[in-house]
Amino acid sequence: MRIGGRKNDQIRPVKLTRNYTKYAEGSVLIEVGDTKIICNASIEDKVPPFLKGSGEGWITAEYNMLPRSTHTRKPRDISKLKIDGRTMEIQRLIGRALRSVVDLKALGEKTIWIDCDVMQADGGTRTASISGAFVALVDAINRLHKEQSFKVFPIRSFVGAISVGIVNNEKILDLCYEEDSKAKVDMNVIMTDKGEFIELQGTGEESPFSRRELDELLTLGEKGVKQVIQAQKDVLKIDCLWIGTGGE
Amino acid sequence: MRIGGRKNDQIRPVKLTRNYTKYAEGSVLIEVGDTKIICNASIEDKVPPFLKGSGEGWITAEYNMLPRSTHTRKPRDISKLKIDGRTMEIQRLIGRALRSVVDLKALGEKTIWIDCDVMQADGGTRTASISGAFVALVDAINRLHKEQSFKVFPIRSFVGAISVGIVNNEKILDLCYEEDSKAKVDMNVIMTDKGEFIELQGTGEESPFSRRELDELLTLGEKGVKQVIQAQKDVLKIDCLWIGTGGE
Amino acid sequence: MRIGGRKNDQIRPVKLTRNYTKYAEGSVLIEVGDTKIICNASIEDKVPPFLKGSGEGWITAEYNMLPRSTHTRKPRDISKLKIDGRTMEIQRLIGRALRSVVDLKALGEKTIWIDCDVMQADGGTRTASISGAFVALVDAINRLHKEQSFKVFPIRSFVGAISVGIVNNEKILDLCYEEDSKAKVDMNVIMTDKGEFIELQGTGEESPFSRRELDELLTLGEKGVKQVIQAQKDVLKIDCLWIGTGGE
Amino acid sequence: MRIGGRKNDQIRPVKLTRNYTKYAEGSVLIEVGDTKIICNASIEDKVPPFLKGSGEGWITAEYNMLPRSTHTRKPRDISKLKIDGRTMEIQRLIGRALRSVVDLKALGEKTIWIDCDVMQADGGTRTASISGAFVALVDAINRLHKEQSFKVFPIRSFVGAISVGIVNNEKILDLCYEEDSKAKVDMNVIMTDKGEFIELQGTGEESPFSRRELDELLTLGEKGVKQVIQAQKDVLKIDCLWIGTGGE
Amino acid sequence: MRIGGRKNDQIRPVKLTRNYTKYAEGSVLIEVGDTKIICNASIEDKVPPFLKGSGEGWITAEYNMLPRSTHTRKPRDISKLKIDGRTMEIQRLIGRALRSVVDLKALGEKTIWIDCDVMQADGGTRTASISGAFVALVDAINRLHKEQSFKVFPIRSFVGAISVGIVNNEKILDLCYEEDSKAKVDMNVIMTDKGEFIELQGTGEESPFSRRELDELLTLGEKGVKQVIQAQKDVLKIDCLWIGTGGE
Amino acid sequence: MRIGGRKNDQIRPVKLTRNYTKYAEGSVLIEVGDTKIICNASIEDKVPPFLKGSGEGWITAEYNMLPRSTHTRKPRDISKLKIDGRTMEIQRLIGRALRSVVDLKALGEKTIWIDCDVMQADGGTRTASISGAFVALVDAINRLHKEQSFKVFPIRSFVGAISVGIVNNEKILDLCYEEDSKAKVDMNVIMTDKGEFIELQGTGEESPFSRRELDELLTLGEKGVKQVIQAQKDVLKIDCLWIGTGGE
Repeated sequence: MRIGGRKNDQIRPVKLTRNYTKYAEGSVLIEVGDTKIICNASIEDKVPPFLKGSGEGWITAEYNMLPRSTHTRKPRDISKLKIDGRTMEIQRLIGRALRSVVDLKALGEKTIWIDCDVMQADGGTRTASISGAFVALVDAINRLHKEQSFKVFPIRSFVGAISVGIVNNEKILDLCYEEDSKAKVDMNVIMTDKGEFIELQGTGEESPFSRRELDELLTLGEKGVKQVIQAQKDVLKIDCLWIGTGGE
Repeated sequence: MRIGGRKNDQIRPVKLTRNYTKYAEGSVLIEVGDTKIICNASIEDKVPPFLKGSGEGWITAEYNMLPRSTHTRKPRDISKLKIDGRTMEIQRLIGRALRSVVDLKALGEKTIWIDCDVMQADGGTRTASISGAFVALVDAINRLHKEQSFKVFPIRSFVGAISVGIVNNEKILDLCYEEDSKAKVDMNVIMTDKGEFIELQGTGEESPFSRRELDELLTLGEKGVKQVIQAQKDVLKIDCLWIGTGGE
Repeated sequence: MRIGGRKNDQIRPVKLTRNYTKYAEGSVLIEVGDTKIICNASIEDKVPPFLKGSGEGWITAEYNMLPRSTHTRKPRDISKLKIDGRTMEIQRLIGRALRSVVDLKALGEKTIWIDCDVMQADGGTRTASISGAFVALVDAINRLHKEQSFKVFPIRSFVGAISVGIVNNEKILDLCYEEDSKAKVDMNVIMTDKGEFIELQGTGEESPFSRRELDELLTLGEKGVKQVIQAQKDVLKIDCLWIGTGGE
Repeated sequence: MRIGGRKNDQIRPVKLTRNYTKYAEGSVLIEVGDTKIICNASIEDKVPPFLKGSGEGWITAEYNMLPRSTHTRKPRDISKLKIDGRTMEIQRLIGRALRSVVDLKALGEKTIWIDCDVMQADGGTRTASISGAFVALVDAINRLHKEQSFKVFPIRSFVGAISVGIVNNEKILDLCYEEDSKAKVDMNVIMTDKGEFIELQGTGEESPFSRRELDELLTLGEKGVKQVIQAQKDVLKIDCLWIGTGGE
Repeated sequence: MRIGGRKNDQIRPVKLTRNYTKYAEGSVLIEVGDTKIICNASIEDKVPPFLKGSGEGWITAEYNMLPRSTHTRKPRDISKLKIDGRTMEIQRLIGRALRSVVDLKALGEKTIWIDCDVMQADGGTRTASISGAFVALVDAINRLHKEQSFKVFPIRSFVGAISVGIVNNEKILDLCYEEDSKAKVDMNVIMTDKGEFIELQGTGEESPFSRRELDELLTLGEKGVKQVIQAQKDVLKIDCLWIGTGGE
Repeated sequence: MRIGGRKNDQIRPVKLTRNYTKYAEGSVLIEVGDTKIICNASIEDKVPPFLKGSGEGWITAEYNMLPRSTHTRKPRDISKLKIDGRTMEIQRLIGRALRSVVDLKALGEKTIWIDCDVMQADGGTRTASISGAFVALVDAINRLHKEQSFKVFPIRSFVGAISVGIVNNEKILDLCYEEDSKAKVDMNVIMTDKGEFIELQGTGEESPFSRRELDELLTLGEKGVKQVIQAQKDVLKIDCLWIGTGGE
């Protein structure tokens, strides 16, 4: 039996709170069980040097854990003058995942900064960051849309993410911290609402996995992402009409 | 008339939420109007090199603004490899203020890390950090007290803080961001519940101030800190009995 | 038709040169087409702080591109005081992949440093680094084995890696730089000689991919890794007998 | 009795030497007892980005202690790649204090860099830095004045600074190092020649202080600053006529 | 008798391999005995700020040892966030030596980056870097010459370098690592093919040396550099005709 | 005619002031013409890791220019988080030069830190640093000698340094800044009082030099260093008796 009595193919409750802080163009608190992350999207009217004059925009992400988001206090990166390797890996993943569903030409020469600050970490922070950041991104782009009315709405699909893994020889969905620390195989599945993969990262540092196990994990992951994307649709439904109208 | 209809000697509503996150030994969300700061206190079983073997403990603070806690996005310190001077100044102030009411000998060889992460900044973040961090500190030390029962309770007094300033020739209490940006004189008042000063920082960068004006500002500040400390007492009342008993 | 007339499921020639430099305990030059990487393994008689006294060893990797390993000169990390995010991601991947086939308890309290320095980059440097570093690791551990005779030989399996991707709607194996820069989907497949997966990283930043496409890519990848591992076996054959004997 | 036989309300001898080094536009050695600081003012014909095109100038300060200005050698900041927090705090204070008496619009788009390098530290280096830097600033601006004749002379008032504190229950003026290290309360008073406050920083880290004690300290401070400013007037008198003429 | 049976005035075999990597405009592997260094020259179409608009070009060098180019692994500079002092010293020397034979006006507003990456270090890496980098520089400038035909060929002379030293009271030429580590006096001699000195660095950290000893060392050095330059001429002979024609 | 009417073989007045600051074990102000450098020697009762337990001491030097020691303000290293290459080169040179005349075994397990802070730079700061630092070193070691009475006095010889160069085809001694900036050849000569060389660094970045020119420069240098060492002997004469007694 899993912690909290969950079934192997069951995700933790996903709660998305929009307009969580007041200054960001998009601001979302995502809670997946006890994992809590503030996802802010900020619009800046310029692009990195390599895109100047290209007509294209950019999306970049930064991820950070508050020092006491974990069991023991994690020193801030600045105290060591180095970004932690894991942090670097995660923020690159968040950036790629969001860029993959955005039409950067349609966005035009703007940068959208995604800031994912983990307030409380109980497993799955990288996938929750993507799922929450997507909603913040939609809010930020919708705000732009109201001001300047895009011809082509710059977001092509929903994107959601979830983790899967093998713990005690069981394939399970949405690992909490305790499960994650015992997992032999650990995989992050990032998909669109059309059921396609955006990114797939599976690691068997503790033990290699077979193609058959991979298949089972993917099936679990697909199931989990669907529910995450449903939660995104639910919370965006009320004031976000572009999906059904001429937005896209 | 002030923003929101406040009187010159009126502070914004102060809301303190304890046990805000689940891992820290003390975790408090302080809200002063729209200023929102997560204050976590973490206990570590060692001290900095200069105190090893001394039998004394240490309290140190780190302050940080989330990138989008302000109107425009503020890049993270790590992206420039430098701690912002203002940040440095504030975290040193928070550390000094809390150490001044703690008996470091009674605490013993432990370090308490205070992390103040500003989620939303609307003026007064350095004073709110101190006021909120004090409650987190009490919770952390009480937890230690339950485990090891201090002979002398290591906290000597409450400490609260508030800002005062001169805006449009009016002396006002607890400046919000918009007031702060127009202030000619700006002062931070940090006091104990016994009405004594812990630290006083007054700056007239825009215009010098007279001793008479200073006196009026101090009187305003004393009034404000009293209310802040009352809010601390209220929120700590229920499960914190050491004040009235043999705690101290 | 692919560059150089390769078929979609054909890898470039893999050449492994052992004892490439004279000081490292294991030193291998791997050439995969025009990609050339020096992979050195160095043994150090201590472990990182988190393993002290545990009886377990550690394997860690560093990856670096010589400034002119690419078409235009890439400034050194030290000139910006920051490790490039991509570099960080890759060196973490190399470390995980090698640790996954090593019995760190059997190794004992030693650190093996893997240094992968790219002399010339023509696509697939992260997978070639893993494939080459594995051979350097075997040489380094064999040298230890000669000195101290392990009871359990610390390497459990071969590990090889290759990239696959979708370019012009074709699924292809072992992308060179020019193919990689046009790829819609890009995947790195890391496997053991027993046909199990160690790590899988697939990214559809340019375009999402379906489960069916994923399956085809995995099949291609399995084919490629098999050939890479055969090349490792060939070059190690002569003086590395542990595989067939009581080494494992 | 104080060290050297001083009375509680007596400052140490203040010696200001102008044109101390030959390249800086303003160069002053200030000696307050055994505290010796080189204060240089350098004029640069550009402003920081946030002032470009504003027509306003800027004044910024850097403070540094030579490694052996203190009893034991203090490693240079560069060896740790971090500016010391105390240094940061002090240089921000010096910059604010000087800006507060300068009409930055009248100065025009120039930056004046103030460098305070402590050769020998015997208490009160932050206040002595301000007092000495002011004289260097006057010399630098006078030199500009000779070249371009300001319509409005950019300096509005003299600014001087001194420390006060409570040591062994005595309120004393201008603490030397030995007194400072025993002080229960420590305050820096920065004032104009018109008797107004520019900045006030009082810290009771060792023990809180009452409003009455604060009043006594302020009275002492006012007395001390007056003497410092007299020393500034004396040294500037001979070749600096703008005070009495149309300079201001 | 010297290691390998060399005579005191004998250099190790010098082997220069051109076009060692495929992207750099000039790419040379230099081997001097067991010392092996990759020397790449890269052309960039801009100059550092201090030369913008001057019509002059620039040559700058970076030197780096691969971590396992030495007996024990040397951590990368980036892991300490600091360039090693010795590295800094060497790369400045390489840059000065090459600039001294180049007509920077004739080169025009271009920067040539010289990267010397030491694969294997067995003494004399700084002099070998200069000798190898010169050949890479010639190749890079010849490539430019083919594209744009310089009026004045920008290279004025050959430049070669060798070390000399005093070991066991013997003056010897071209010290290998083992000799270098026992040397009382160590000198680097950098000269043109016209027999003039470009740079001379002699150090008697272990023991001072007399003017007479200096003279003998210089004579040895002259002999060694001549042979190095002959090796450069030999390897460049085939496809580099500018020396005898109107190139210069 | 040279600036100030000097002859080609004439050095500027050398003035050495001992006990310049009060905390350092040795503290010297050296003035060579308008070049002014504070040279402090600090004794520390430990050695770097590579000497622990060896019984040997260490001498290390740091060199720094105050920001306004030069015509235009030079930003501090810490503002760029990088030590300037030239600074690195110079401080390594100072350290080597002093170590070469010290018997590190006789010194025992202590580190002597040499800090050379340039207050005013008018050419020849690296040689003046060595000449001044030597006197500070003698004072520091003499102080140790009084406390613990060395069996073998740890200093073997005097060491002095001077620059020579070729300006307008004239070989000249002790270049001031203006001469240095026009020099075709520039050489630093570091010698003992016994007329032996400690280090020799000659650079012909602007133009190569012949062996004959080198000889003339060395003769000039020898003459200059003699006078520098005489100045050291003069200033140390009064209270430094070890030279004539059993000190050495």
